[in-house]
Amino acid sequence: MTLEDAEKLDAADPLAFARARFRLPEGVIYLDGNSLGALPATAQAALVNTVEHQWGDDLITSWTKHDWIDWPTKIAAKLAPIVGAKPSELLIADSTSVCLFKLLAAAVQARPGRRTILSQERNFPTDLYVAHGLCEMVGLKLRTVAPSAVLDAIDDDTAVVSLTHVDYRGASSYDMRDINDAGHAQGALVLWDLSHSAGAVQLDLDGAGCDLAVGCGYKYLNGGPGAPAFLFVAERLQDELRSPLQGWMGHAEPFAFDDDFRPATGIGRFLTGTPSILALAALDAGLDTFEGIAMADVEAKSRALSQLFIDEVEARCGSEVRLASPRDPAIRASHVVFAYADGYAVMQALIARGVIGDFRAPDLMRFGFTPLYNGFADVFNAAQILADILGSRQWDQPRFRTRAKVT
Amino acid sequence: MTLEDAEKLDAADPLAFARARFRLPEGVIYLDGNSLGALPATAQAALVNTVEHQWGDDLITSWTKHDWIDWPTKIAAKLAPIVGAKPSELLIADSTSVCLFKLLAAAVQARPGRRTILSQERNFPTDLYVAHGLCEMVGLKLRTVAPSAVLDAIDDDTAVVSLTHVDYRGASSYDMRDINDAGHAQGALVLWDLSHSAGAVQLDLDGAGCDLAVGCGYKYLNGGPGAPAFLFVAERLQDELRSPLQGWMGHAEPFAFDDDFRPATGIGRFLTGTPSILALAALDAGLDTFEGIAMADVEAKSRALSQLFIDEVEARCGSEVRLASPRDPAIRASHVVFAYADGYAVMQALIARGVIGDFRAPDLMRFGFTPLYNGFADVFNAAQILADILGSRQWDQPRFRTRAKVT
Repeated sequence: MTLEDAEKLDAADPLAFARARFRLPEGVIYLDGNSLGALPATAQAALVNTVEHQWGDDLITSWTKHDWIDWPTKIAAKLAPIVGAKPSELLIADSTSVCLFKLLAAAVQARPGRRTILSQERNFPTDLYVAHGLCEMVGLKLRTVAPSAVLDAIDDDTAVVSLTHVDYRGASSYDMRDINDAGHAQGALVLWDLSHSAGAVQLDLDGAGCDLAVGCGYKYLNGGPGAPAFLFVAERLQDELRSPLQGWMGHAEPFAFDDDFRPATGIGRFLTGTPSILALAALDAGLDTFEGIAMADVEAKSRALSQLFIDEVEARCGSEVRLASPRDPAIRASHVVFAYADGYAVMQALIARGVIGDFRAPDLMRFGFTPLYNGFADVFNAAQILADILGSRQWDQPRFRTRAKVT
Repeated sequence: MTLEDAEKLDAADPLAFARARFRLPEGVIYLDGNSLGALPATAQAALVNTVEHQWGDDLITSWTKHDWIDWPTKIAAKLAPIVGAKPSELLIADSTSVCLFKLLAAAVQARPGRRTILSQERNFPTDLYVAHGLCEMVGLKLRTVAPSAVLDAIDDDTAVVSLTHVDYRGASSYDMRDINDAGHAQGALVLWDLSHSAGAVQLDLDGAGCDLAVGCGYKYLNGGPGAPAFLFVAERLQDELRSPLQGWMGHAEPFAFDDDFRPATGIGRFLTGTPSILALAALDAGLDTFEGIAMADVEAKSRALSQLFIDEVEARCGSEVRLASPRDPAIRASHVVFAYADGYAVMQALIARGVIGDFRAPDLMRFGFTPLYNGFADVFNAAQILADILGSRQWDQPRFRTRAKVT
């Protein structure tokens, strides 16, 4: 593969037009859309409109006049084709961690007598922390097993299986259908964390028989730093489940100001407090970057980009750099990790040269491929720069070894 | 009182300069800062900077480069003089409802064996819903009594007393010191909801011996629609209390990605998920509107404004309009409600004439006075317009009777 070959792939890329939907800085190859999606070109104007004309001019009347009250469901509906769900099954709310807590708590309440939440070892930390905090509160047990042991570990004591669909480190993914079926066969509910899948790979939540899911708004969905999260509750479960984290925005009639809580019908019952309208405006612009785009195309390009990166890195960087993601593209999502003992310093040296990925302890250099704005030449060049940094030991400097608070 | 008298009060007002810190629409008298604070003049530029230069240009590196990781504590520190607390006792996080849940749950865990959360009837609904949801989860009892019965109802079964400092309807306020002392005498913790107090009246959380508090960012703190909330945990309690709604941002080392949760030391342990940076940027601009302003001046002006409104309305509107806020300014905070059978329609007629207040069921017309941007002439004119609408029955039209989803 040469740069010219990569450029030919870009020229033939059916998603190439989508890059214009983002404002990316010159000279940067951004391979961290799996941590923070790039800025949508329309986000700033959307925020200025919300701030100046809605908040500023129309003040409190905007809740009705600009329909703010319905934004959590209206904006969530844009996720429907991205995750393969009905619009009425989706809601934007809170953070991923808080959404996890709400749905896990609702799920264990709906399975009284069962005493276990089943998850995997080395799940994304917050998924384990939330489940553990809930278990301590209500006297349940959090059981974690290796990914390969999950199917067999589901039993009639399992209230809910809580898994991250795509591993945040290595990008390996579960077969949703298998886990859902196994969970249901034992009478358990299944909750998926889609933080590293939504917007990156093709999902079919309804088709795969999913019960519950949460996901992150600020990664592949381009909703901005700390964007609100989303949650999914299958239609068939919406009447049965109730979030015990119940607040006025989830009430059937919030403005009746009743002392007693009556949950709204439908997905709205999973709202708690007043949503951040500014954060929603940015996430709305993020979701608009997917308008008219087929997730099958996104997934196909994601696979092609990550495969090109793996091939080029392995051809150029030698065996000290070890692929720590699945080699099989069928079970690998949209990021790739390479293990390298001095990975932290190498990543800082890459960032200094304009190739932005991130690092996950203890030794993983993580590179995310975002089909909407990453191209094949980007990926080719990133691999070449990585090879150059390693070959010349450019990373071996104190300034690259100093650990930042956030990695 | 004449308009000229009111204008003289404005000319002599030591806080008059603060109005320039806001962008208010022409021709509007905004008396709903207790529902949604007006737009700070600097908010839009702050958001554009955060979006364009931080998110857009510096992307993921902004967590370190622009110190995003510390914004929840750094911005919260600006609340210290507003609420009378140490900077290290304050945190910006989530919504008020979610913050309530976290601190209530932490409080009841810290008082094992005690089976009651004590609150008041007709508290702000979300306070009751959250407490009730928690009680159902962990097998406790929510007991609500009339405000006047709270002191006597605290007993050795009370884990936590949860009250809203200033009533959202009538603006009556509790004596914090009395309740705190009574709670502590019985071994209970006390949690205050400051949503209708913070930024409106002078508070001294530390001086009054407060344990825990939460409050709203989008009312008198001018943080924008659905702004994140704040929470307060007295320093002496920070090591003892743990939020069971535990997420990765509250971990001692979030980027160690450990499977086990170890809470951060200090107030940071009460963070859960990733905070919305855009929402924080707006709230930061909101808190800056208080820079250099003494809360004693804010409270004094608030009392003067609300008293002027009461006097003018009572002099002009006749006895059908009944004051439903305390007449004693010592126990009345910064808004005033008048009961009127057709209050909803009257409020819509007021809004149509540029006087924006709001309505609370069943019959309360609510007017909030924000000393930073409301003046005496505003208040005088608002009373006059109300009298005119009532005298000429301008409100008696179908268009004013149609109830909106949000009141």
